[in-house]
Amino acid sequence: MRLTYRISMNLILFDQHEIRGATLGLTGRRARHILEVHRAREGDELRVGQIDGMIGSAILTDIIDDSEQPEVRLEVALKVEPPPPLDLTLFLALPRPKFLKKTLQTVATLGVKDIYLMNAVRVEKVYWSCEQLSENEVREAFLLGLEQARDTKLPRLHMRRLFKPFVEDEAPALIRDRKSYVAHPTATAECPRGLASSLALAIGPEGGFIPYEVAHLENAGFTPVTIGPRILKVETAVTALISRLC
Amino acid sequence: MRLTYRISMNLILFDQHEIRGATLGLTGRRARHILEVHRAREGDELRVGQIDGMIGSAILTDIIDDSEQPEVRLEVALKVEPPPPLDLTLFLALPRPKFLKKTLQTVATLGVKDIYLMNAVRVEKVYWSCEQLSENEVREAFLLGLEQARDTKLPRLHMRRLFKPFVEDEAPALIRDRKSYVAHPTATAECPRGLASSLALAIGPEGGFIPYEVAHLENAGFTPVTIGPRILKVETAVTALISRLC
Repeated sequence: MRLTYRISMNLILFDQHEIRGATLGLTGRRARHILEVHRAREGDELRVGQIDGMIGSAILTDIIDDSEQPEVRLEVALKVEPPPPLDLTLFLALPRPKFLKKTLQTVATLGVKDIYLMNAVRVEKVYWSCEQLSENEVREAFLLGLEQARDTKLPRLHMRRLFKPFVEDEAPALIRDRKSYVAHPTATAECPRGLASSLALAIGPEGGFIPYEVAHLENAGFTPVTIGPRILKVETAVTALISRLC
Repeated sequence: MRLTYRISMNLILFDQHEIRGATLGLTGRRARHILEVHRAREGDELRVGQIDGMIGSAILTDIIDDSEQPEVRLEVALKVEPPPPLDLTLFLALPRPKFLKKTLQTVATLGVKDIYLMNAVRVEKVYWSCEQLSENEVREAFLLGLEQARDTKLPRLHMRRLFKPFVEDEAPALIRDRKSYVAHPTATAECPRGLASSLALAIGPEGGFIPYEVAHLENAGFTPVTIGPRILKVETAVTALISRLC
């Protein structure tokens, strides 16, 4: 399929150690993307961002090698801050591995910066040893999400493999100054809309938190709320709940 | 990977012609799903729904063949109406083929029943001849979305390959009694929240509608609105905008 116009790449992210002065050298996925998808040529301007830093533009100065292992060099000028983060801490029952990467990517795109992956009865034990939870995979998912959103600030992922000590001993302090909700399809309260305050949101696994878990979360300070009878996959649920709350 | 508990299948959908009296016979994907994912045995109860009809339960009475081509028989009792549809007409610039199926699936899950796939300058012409737009592929995407949401009512998909006649001549009548918005990242108005009225929502392609298109949509009755500076992929944007508006 031939593209008849250039796709604008949303944002090319780089690490501090990749830049020397104003010169950025890229290889691998980003170099190929710049050359093959963006089809940039020397002199073209691209949007770039430094991970955990500012956003700006870059001029493509050199294409070192146009073959299998291309390398590009860019002259970078960083100018503006990334978009403001969401003031929302997400507590997410560890999703099934096949949904994990997309979910983390979406969470990063939406601007969440603190994610607690937690256990629940309906989380399979084997999920905790899946490769999608490795540091590299998680970082890649977050970077893809940030590139999509034109953000630079990496989310922090916290893993909590024991439900009860986490919810009883740690969660209350984490949500102390936040309006805190747990998504629960059979809750009587409707999920509130457009809250201009610090928030915490807990989302269960496929099949939901069991009543024991909802009771524990309620004791810890989370109010059960519903967004209706439709059952959403986790990536959709995260987006729907956050879009409604924030 | 061995599952230590049974995944509850959200809903098994069937067509009117597949049932005789109260007896439903299934093969293919649904039979395999019932046997392999749900691991149902004779006597188990499953949740079923008739396409465009009611929802109920079914007892698995016979497993005809446990091999490559399994068949199952169920005794069906339909009892309740599906969840209410969203009163929102969606106007969506035709997404890139690789995102189309997931997007249609998500739209069906959210409860949208009228979708106009429309042209825009940033929609590649070749997208209109992709196999993902075939009747079968579209129907499968919708069915997967309905199964997820526990809904039965198939959305209607309308394709409009000419932007100007559609927006100038047809759209005004389609949105006459609706509050109508077009998502536009640089709009000055914020997207409203929780509107209890009939709605129409237009969402552009990757890179957005061009100013000419936004002006035409505005003339037709759509108000440009924004949900912030983050750029979302189409599936996420659809969910975020609908969750905020409805």
